[in-house]
Amino acid sequence: MTRSPAQLKLYEIIFGTDTRLGKTFDLILIMLICVSVLVLMIESLSDLSERSLLLLRIAEWFFTLVFTLEYALRLYCAPNPFRYARSFYGVVDLLSVLPSYISLIFPGANYLLIVRLLRVLRVFRILKLARYLSEANVLLRAMLHSRRKILVFFFSVFVLSIIFGSLMYVVEGTENGFSSIPKSVYWTIVTITTVGYGDITPQTSLGQFIAAIAMLTGYSIIAVPTGILTAELTQEMNREKQRRQCSGCHAEAHELAAKYCLHCGSRLKEKDEPN
Amino acid sequence: MTRSPAQLKLYEIIFGTDTRLGKTFDLILIMLICVSVLVLMIESLSDLSERSLLLLRIAEWFFTLVFTLEYALRLYCAPNPFRYARSFYGVVDLLSVLPSYISLIFPGANYLLIVRLLRVLRVFRILKLARYLSEANVLLRAMLHSRRKILVFFFSVFVLSIIFGSLMYVVEGTENGFSSIPKSVYWTIVTITTVGYGDITPQTSLGQFIAAIAMLTGYSIIAVPTGILTAELTQEMNREKQRRQCSGCHAEAHELAAKYCLHCGSRLKEKDEPN
Amino acid sequence: MTRSPAQLKLYEIIFGTDTRLGKTFDLILIMLICVSVLVLMIESLSDLSERSLLLLRIAEWFFTLVFTLEYALRLYCAPNPFRYARSFYGVVDLLSVLPSYISLIFPGANYLLIVRLLRVLRVFRILKLARYLSEANVLLRAMLHSRRKILVFFFSVFVLSIIFGSLMYVVEGTENGFSSIPKSVYWTIVTITTVGYGDITPQTSLGQFIAAIAMLTGYSIIAVPTGILTAELTQEMNREKQRRQCSGCHAEAHELAAKYCLHCGSRLKEKDEPN
Amino acid sequence: MTRSPAQLKLYEIIFGTDTRLGKTFDLILIMLICVSVLVLMIESLSDLSERSLLLLRIAEWFFTLVFTLEYALRLYCAPNPFRYARSFYGVVDLLSVLPSYISLIFPGANYLLIVRLLRVLRVFRILKLARYLSEANVLLRAMLHSRRKILVFFFSVFVLSIIFGSLMYVVEGTENGFSSIPKSVYWTIVTITTVGYGDITPQTSLGQFIAAIAMLTGYSIIAVPTGILTAELTQEMNREKQRRQCSGCHAEAHELAAKYCLHCGSRLKEKDEPN
Repeated sequence: MTRSPAQLKLYEIIFGTDTRLGKTFDLILIMLICVSVLVLMIESLSDLSERSLLLLRIAEWFFTLVFTLEYALRLYCAPNPFRYARSFYGVVDLLSVLPSYISLIFPGANYLLIVRLLRVLRVFRILKLARYLSEANVLLRAMLHSRRKILVFFFSVFVLSIIFGSLMYVVEGTENGFSSIPKSVYWTIVTITTVGYGDITPQTSLGQFIAAIAMLTGYSIIAVPTGILTAELTQEMNREKQRRQCSGCHAEAHELAAKYCLHCGSRLKEKDEPN
Repeated sequence: MTRSPAQLKLYEIIFGTDTRLGKTFDLILIMLICVSVLVLMIESLSDLSERSLLLLRIAEWFFTLVFTLEYALRLYCAPNPFRYARSFYGVVDLLSVLPSYISLIFPGANYLLIVRLLRVLRVFRILKLARYLSEANVLLRAMLHSRRKILVFFFSVFVLSIIFGSLMYVVEGTENGFSSIPKSVYWTIVTITTVGYGDITPQTSLGQFIAAIAMLTGYSIIAVPTGILTAELTQEMNREKQRRQCSGCHAEAHELAAKYCLHCGSRLKEKDEPN
Repeated sequence: MTRSPAQLKLYEIIFGTDTRLGKTFDLILIMLICVSVLVLMIESLSDLSERSLLLLRIAEWFFTLVFTLEYALRLYCAPNPFRYARSFYGVVDLLSVLPSYISLIFPGANYLLIVRLLRVLRVFRILKLARYLSEANVLLRAMLHSRRKILVFFFSVFVLSIIFGSLMYVVEGTENGFSSIPKSVYWTIVTITTVGYGDITPQTSLGQFIAAIAMLTGYSIIAVPTGILTAELTQEMNREKQRRQCSGCHAEAHELAAKYCLHCGSRLKEKDEPN
Repeated sequence: MTRSPAQLKLYEIIFGTDTRLGKTFDLILIMLICVSVLVLMIESLSDLSERSLLLLRIAEWFFTLVFTLEYALRLYCAPNPFRYARSFYGVVDLLSVLPSYISLIFPGANYLLIVRLLRVLRVFRILKLARYLSEANVLLRAMLHSRRKILVFFFSVFVLSIIFGSLMYVVEGTENGFSSIPKSVYWTIVTITTVGYGDITPQTSLGQFIAAIAMLTGYSIIAVPTGILTAELTQEMNREKQRRQCSGCHAEAHELAAKYCLHCGSRLKEKDEPN
């Protein structure tokens, strides 16, 4: 299927970020998103007059209609509408209008519109913040490399939480707020992560003793993910450094902050410059 | 003592994970364990009808009988029953049925059955998640190497907690919730680990001053186990890298993620592949 | 504009730290600042007699007049009064007297005088704590190098907080304390940072489940800034080491603690010594 | 002054740890200390009968007399009594009996006897836990190297706490629990260290906003001491490794866990073995 010139032009404006029009379109879009999220947050405040509530509702529907139109246009001009609809941004774009229509049937659903915020992530693409993205990439790659270690860690925390939770349920019992095992597990997670709301607290001496052990456990295993990530990050940053090669003398391993080659003095390329 | 063919066959099914039957047996077992833990958690909810409570009780006894039978079979077919009974999994297997029988005398003990969850750890063995295990090994080895440092650290925290706790007992006294030294020590641990329930809080100015010092102490020593583990982990990961040797040119120090030798291009062996 | 001898002399005393008079002036200033901050803190205590409150007020106005005079003198003798007025310390100096005058119109504003504390930072300059400053520099440079990573991290936390907050607002609702989205976002930040006041806590099972996920998320991402900073700091300290060069044999990479060259034994220069 | 044979013999028993008698003396001492601390903790429990309270009092006085006698003997047989009295253990030994006598005048002072616990630290000396001590030394040296960085960090936290505290005092005011600046500073420390008791919480929107910023600040600066210590510890462990030299071929840099030289295979000396 060949695309009409109108489709191609629209594609350039809506999906592109290189032309003046494309950039302007994206900037306006992001401002609209931010304002619409703000409207939602204000709408949730309890002490609003009838009148301002009505105004906010109208504003919300205005944004919903604009974003619906935008979604339709994206589907219309995308080279492969199905692929766009299944992509991350395609799904987010759909989710950012759906709750409005659902709220016609189930009131309250419109607050789920907050998912619109995820669309703001496009800001990175628009501003071509290559440096920011490369930093995010180092972080993501370090996390990806340590995903198995993190999984093993979370599995241990999960098993630990259920066992501690059940123990506390038996020791403290319903009368002290540990009214069921799921609730005790919730308490254990609150304790191990050192959040410690204090809505449920151990009252018996034995319970407090077990709680103290749970806390010290949490305190020590807080070290595990930090240790994993730091070790990976150090290696990842070393690798990143190794990758910076001088195009003159082919010397490697330049500091990320370096602008000139250590050996021949020729200017080093930025990662996002064309080779 | 020679073992009968029936024993050998049973051993292959129950303890083995290489044959089709052995794998299936383990997978069914793990599913049974998960369901039995879920049954226990649901049973603890307070708002259940008489009828569903009865059903859950029956299910619980069904699981107990199945696991008892399994334990008997394991004892029967193990090459050395005593060694199995004393092993980690042997003890866990026994503990995962005992509370049911104890609960006939002491009601409530059946919640200790949650220890069954530990049996799920077998999942690592079955799925031959060699990679996951190797990750867990790196973590465990880093912890083992730093066990003496961690011990010195915990001993200091322990002494610190008792001294801070007694000080607060003297300063705040019974009328502000610090009703005994053990309770004050509990409060100190809650504070130093930055959990902070707020069930006991200092009320006098001097008490709040000491509490602030305890918090800052806790805040700084949170750095110690993290620092220890990270430093060990970095070294452990370097060692792990060093161990990956190319079988072609014997070059060492390949990245864990690398699939081919840096120097001669021949494929690197996975750690769990036969040499 | 040429400056009068009186201006030059005053400049040496007020801004300089090399002469005996300059040092004495700064030391007296710092003592005055500390006492004035203490006066402010005591003044805020609720159980003061009329008489002591009056005394504290008089003391406060005394300090304000002294600091106003000092500010005027600084403006008078500075080589470039406008540049001084716009500098960090110039703004702080002004802010440390303004609230007193504002409090004549708006009572209570005088507590903002606490900003005077920032003037104490001058202590580093006076005592010529070059070593402390160089340590602070290593910290600052490590933070500067990782500023983009930290920004990406804070942006993610921000988006995450708003989404979790809205979700909890919908799930828990006004009757459980989540009375608006901004308040829910406040709760999410309290939870993710593992502070956990407990003034607002989830009451429904679903809310507790989401809260548990938020906590575990917070628990894991606490690792991210630590990981970033540690990795940067390690590199920064290596770089610092590399920079220490022996003036005799030009050997590099001396430990920061080293006093003599590893290779030729000649004394190493302190970083703040003249070359 | 020459010492009598009785003094020399006593010195060997009380201060020494090499002879059989010396070891036995120290072990008995540590057991007495532990029991006396336990007695103190039990005594603080509120629900004790008259009779058991009397028994505990007698036990306490028994321990006090024994420890007083021991202190007198130490003074008697020490080669330099004044130096012993001024040493760390000398002071602790004195402090561990003084409160008993003070409690005759000021009741309650006897709980300060808990300082006796510090005497247990002698256990490291007795058991000749050279390995533990060397681990503790690595930790201590890493902390010593980073003491200036840690100081800069604590100074910043201190200034930050006072400024945030005063701001909250002005914003929230007495009616919301922020009844004075010192109390607000206490709240800020509770928040920044992520302890979060919840005994004082911001009620106004502006207060919650400032609190959220304080939390995020605390969350990020938690990274600073961890980063500092980890970076130092990594370097310290590398240095430690470098120090392990083979006595055969003089090759350096053996892993701490290594038992044999990498190059010539001769056995490496333990750090605590005589050279």
